[in-house]
Amino acid sequence: MSNLPFDLVGLDADDTLWHCEKYFQQATDRFFEIVSPWLDSDVDLGRVLHDNEVGRLATMGFGVKSFALSMVETAIVATDGRIPSTEVHRIVTLAYGMLEAPVELFPGVLGAVREMAEDHTLVLVTKGDLLHQQRKLQSSGLSTYFDHVEIVSDKTSSTYRSFLHRQKVEPDRFVMVGDSVKSDVLPVLAIGGRAVHVPSQHQWSHEHAEHDGDVPTLAELSELPAWLATTSGA
Amino acid sequence: MSNLPFDLVGLDADDTLWHCEKYFQQATDRFFEIVSPWLDSDVDLGRVLHDNEVGRLATMGFGVKSFALSMVETAIVATDGRIPSTEVHRIVTLAYGMLEAPVELFPGVLGAVREMAEDHTLVLVTKGDLLHQQRKLQSSGLSTYFDHVEIVSDKTSSTYRSFLHRQKVEPDRFVMVGDSVKSDVLPVLAIGGRAVHVPSQHQWSHEHAEHDGDVPTLAELSELPAWLATTSGA
Repeated sequence: MSNLPFDLVGLDADDTLWHCEKYFQQATDRFFEIVSPWLDSDVDLGRVLHDNEVGRLATMGFGVKSFALSMVETAIVATDGRIPSTEVHRIVTLAYGMLEAPVELFPGVLGAVREMAEDHTLVLVTKGDLLHQQRKLQSSGLSTYFDHVEIVSDKTSSTYRSFLHRQKVEPDRFVMVGDSVKSDVLPVLAIGGRAVHVPSQHQWSHEHAEHDGDVPTLAELSELPAWLATTSGA
Repeated sequence: MSNLPFDLVGLDADDTLWHCEKYFQQATDRFFEIVSPWLDSDVDLGRVLHDNEVGRLATMGFGVKSFALSMVETAIVATDGRIPSTEVHRIVTLAYGMLEAPVELFPGVLGAVREMAEDHTLVLVTKGDLLHQQRKLQSSGLSTYFDHVEIVSDKTSSTYRSFLHRQKVEPDRFVMVGDSVKSDVLPVLAIGGRAVHVPSQHQWSHEHAEHDGDVPTLAELSELPAWLATTSGA
């Protein structure tokens, strides 16, 4: 048993360390501008896109490429094929822009991660597209501070349990930190781990969930080193 | 030091355990049928698609979703936007078909993997789309025989080295088995590991490479248990 409260600190990436959802929202706004001129007035484009994304989630998973294919299909179906393919090409180009966008860290993240890495073992636990997440981590300047990167297709109690088993860490020696109650908080509490919620201003509606208020909640990730320093283990 | 020649046996998945490239080739054939009527006669569609895929590889990575976005963009660019979006929708639908296709094991794979799992630690080392590879492994009936699944964005000496480091296995105690000389054989030999080549009938031209003939080569994966039984370690 070390003096530290945790053997492993898990950090979510998208919308916890760096901006992500705002790029999806910007792309969605551009998508609406491209598709709207070809739409019948009674079609709720946002609803069609959302239903397509959620309906395809089990097959397609998270990430920009899945989102791009959903936008392409939605544009064609919602306009009954009236949208010209040149406009569809503009939608595909939005996806390339997202995949190549520079990583924009939240304020204080670099310093906080560097400070925590001095006496904690940090692991990045993120879902989505493997290559895109790896590229974002590389260009973030943070990769040197992480002991391990775990990219999972979904964050459930079962994925956390098998991840901790492989890492040989007991759940009560693990704390997960992230912006999503559904993905970063509830499944970790369910297996006996600890969780810290750092809410984001931007959140995809599919990720929304509530916790019961007992979960430590920080306004910014930069407050995490101080929280770790004053927290005792399980 | 165990009596076994290797502490870890790595198996590639696509076109080593199960069919993959034939689905890409079938989809490419359908893509040609869909796009050809809208094409100027002097356009080499196969060349445009190949150049798009390879050109986008660093950003998009491997897998069906990247391939689908390449097909969509190629169809529009190669026809100067003449292809109607309803035909583009048929291309997107090809991708869904690929993602949902049943897994088709090569002959003898199930028995060979089950036999090897009795006295070897098996790990699946595969690249491509995380969720799609996980779903294929689940539906293959093989997941119970693998100790670990390593899904990487690319198979280089550096990814193999860091994977073996995390697994605490020395390179000379590792053997990698797969159909791709470029991905499964050469980078493993380069770090002092062993490799077994199981050529596939179908291979993507981008994956093509030659080895110098000293690499053990099996006609089918079903021959691997016998090879392991008669091989001594490094």
